[in-house]
Amino acid sequence: MWLYLAALLGLYFLHRWYQERQMVGNLTEKYVFITGCSSGFGNHLARHLDARGLWVLATCTTQKGAEQLDKVTSERLKTTVLDVTSKESVAAVTEWVKEQVGKKGLWGLVNNAGIGVPSGPNEWLTKDDFAKVINVNLLGLIDVTLHMLPLVRRARGRVVNVCSVNGCLACFGGGYCPSKFGVEAFSDTLRRELHPFGIKVSIVEPGSFRTPIQSKSAESYEPLWSRLPSDLKECYGQKYFEQCDKTLVFINF
Amino acid sequence: MWLYLAALLGLYFLHRWYQERQMVGNLTEKYVFITGCSSGFGNHLARHLDARGLWVLATCTTQKGAEQLDKVTSERLKTTVLDVTSKESVAAVTEWVKEQVGKKGLWGLVNNAGIGVPSGPNEWLTKDDFAKVINVNLLGLIDVTLHMLPLVRRARGRVVNVCSVNGCLACFGGGYCPSKFGVEAFSDTLRRELHPFGIKVSIVEPGSFRTPIQSKSAESYEPLWSRLPSDLKECYGQKYFEQCDKTLVFINF
Repeated sequence: MWLYLAALLGLYFLHRWYQERQMVGNLTEKYVFITGCSSGFGNHLARHLDARGLWVLATCTTQKGAEQLDKVTSERLKTTVLDVTSKESVAAVTEWVKEQVGKKGLWGLVNNAGIGVPSGPNEWLTKDDFAKVINVNLLGLIDVTLHMLPLVRRARGRVVNVCSVNGCLACFGGGYCPSKFGVEAFSDTLRRELHPFGIKVSIVEPGSFRTPIQSKSAESYEPLWSRLPSDLKECYGQKYFEQCDKTLVFINF
Repeated sequence: MWLYLAALLGLYFLHRWYQERQMVGNLTEKYVFITGCSSGFGNHLARHLDARGLWVLATCTTQKGAEQLDKVTSERLKTTVLDVTSKESVAAVTEWVKEQVGKKGLWGLVNNAGIGVPSGPNEWLTKDDFAKVINVNLLGLIDVTLHMLPLVRRARGRVVNVCSVNGCLACFGGGYCPSKFGVEAFSDTLRRELHPFGIKVSIVEPGSFRTPIQSKSAESYEPLWSRLPSDLKECYGQKYFEQCDKTLVFINF
């Protein structure tokens, strides 16, 4: 009887020891760079990692967003403004990160910046609507990754690409789903290529979360509907438009 | 005995009747628009459908390609030059197609145009390398589709997007796999949206075929390798480059 109890206790401590081995240590010596920190997942992650003691380098799309994040975080967290679609902006921020991390390199790169609009029935959109989303969510993510890789390599770090369930399942029209499908492909090849260097590449595929990307996504299809030529409006019909709009309200809770 | 034979014969004719019902009729009254007909699948399809008696509207990237196709096909097949990345070119060709098909509309739209290079290890490439491929294979395909849809609707036709096995499985770096993943997403949503209009949307996912897109794809990684900064060359090593190049030769047969 006592023998069994001792064995169980031993197993329990073995399990705890194993669990603790999975935890990342020396958090206070690690640098993490996160894009899209004005709101949503990026903002939450930046504040969370700051509270855990990591050195967080957070980018926002606006100065206002950066200042707001600065106010609610420690002095260890640094912010800057980044437009992932601008090659100049990405290059400048890379230099800034280089200065910050020095020889330590970048332990974590979190590509979180993304937009959701314009989205809607494909035929109601233009090429520019698709390009706008793909430029941020896919090409912007690729550009930031390519620039940061030398710093990530220095720390044998990790890349985390915030994708979406819509990276596997295309549920609505517009550039969002194609861009997230693209992120899956890019991450898959990058993961295999960087494995020999000890760099991990992960994706996160969130489902339906109430973050600003969703509430901003499309409050109404009215702007898309109103610009449609009359013959196309006739094809789809007022009822189709109204039902689409109702579904949107449902999606946005 | 005779009863069994008669029943078998009956089943055979029923099977043949069912098979024939699956065949598309009135081919000589149908218009098909195909992009990327200078070579490869597009060229083959254009010649095949021309021989079957359809009205083929074939686009090539160069005047030379168009002239060569004209030479080997009937007078029913018409060619024009199209750059799918140029909005003006897509708009102009749409007008040309409108004139050709008149009230009949477009029974088939085959988005076949695509490029494969630059491709290679992701870290050896730039954002522009990715953008180049995505602009043709994904945004170009979307633009052509959006322009042609009213004509396809008129004929209750079908859209066929030539994707790739790399639309499901990302095997190598660069913009090709992300672009093809994106085509899958776009086609999935478009299929559901156009179903009520009686328009079918299909994709083709070819595996490894010896078409010019492949032989042009990357004869050698030498140009990418030679432009790499020396520290990155050192990271990957000469052996890695040589093995990559060997794999390419293998892929290209």
